Amino acid sequence: MSLGETIDLLKRSPVGRLAMAVGDRPYVVPLHFLYDGGKIYFHCASEGKKMEYIARNPNVCFEVDEFLGLRPGEGPCDWGTRYRSAIVYGRASALSEESERIEVLNKFLEKYAGRGHRIQKPPRDVTVMGITIEEITGKQDLR
Amino acid sequence: MSLGETIDLLKRSPVGRLAMAVGDRPYVVPLHFLYDGGKIYFHCASEGKKMEYIARNPNVCFEVDEFLGLRPGEGPCDWGTRYRSAIVYGRASALSEESERIEVLNKFLEKYAGRGHRIQKPPRDVTVMGITIEEITGKQDLR
Repeated sequence: MSLGETIDLLKRSPVGRLAMAVGDRPYVVPLHFLYDGGKIYFHCASEGKKMEYIARNPNVCFEVDEFLGLRPGEGPCDWGTRYRSAIVYGRASALSEESERIEVLNKFLEKYAGRGHRIQKPPRDVTVMGITIEEITGKQDLR
Repeated sequence: MSLGETIDLLKRSPVGRLAMAVGDRPYVVPLHFLYDGGKIYFHCASEGKKMEYIARNPNVCFEVDEFLGLRPGEGPCDWGTRYRSAIVYGRASALSEESERIEVLNKFLEKYAGRGHRIQKPPRDVTVMGITIEEITGKQDLR
């Protein structure tokens, strides 16, 4: 899958899964997110398990997928799956600038709620996180 | 969400995401899987990134989710998501007994291809992995 197709998948996916790790303990959660300008953004409560993990280790792996159905085959081992997926490696950190948080949250609202929904200031108990992308890989099988 | 509802979600989900970690590097991939008898099973190529990670650290975190739609609210912060999700922590290891591998692969076939598809012996280049579950948590918001 080309980088452009992988980015399109990241742009349109409503849910991604964020994997974190502390020590030898991986942790993965589903979340809403925004791909914009070469970064991935998400928001979360300012206190909680995600923030604890990322504070201790900012390296994350992020995944989206589209399961498009099974492809029956002659024998049991000839079955396949029609899918697209993207895996992103990067480092997560909280956005410190209020203007950037507002901009990201408004793009979030546009993605999920549509135009016409805007905030003027970010809610106090919400942290907006950005993932600086180090590597993106995309895979698909559309046969 | 009750444990029974969480297990129902694990049973019916076609795709889960497996998170692994080596050092401070998390890694997450989507995969087909089977929940059966209190364990999670998946199969993969005998050589590859998943096997490398699990050989170095068998602790995994596994996730499924159902995104059921957005719930519009009055203000931007009143929007919500209707969803179900399950997160499982456990340890992954390869099944060594051929009879168990055959049984698991046939249950896989039943889940994905339906009854009437059976194998008599496991393919050589496929490893069947089982996750011994240490903890399951389920969450839902159906409002």
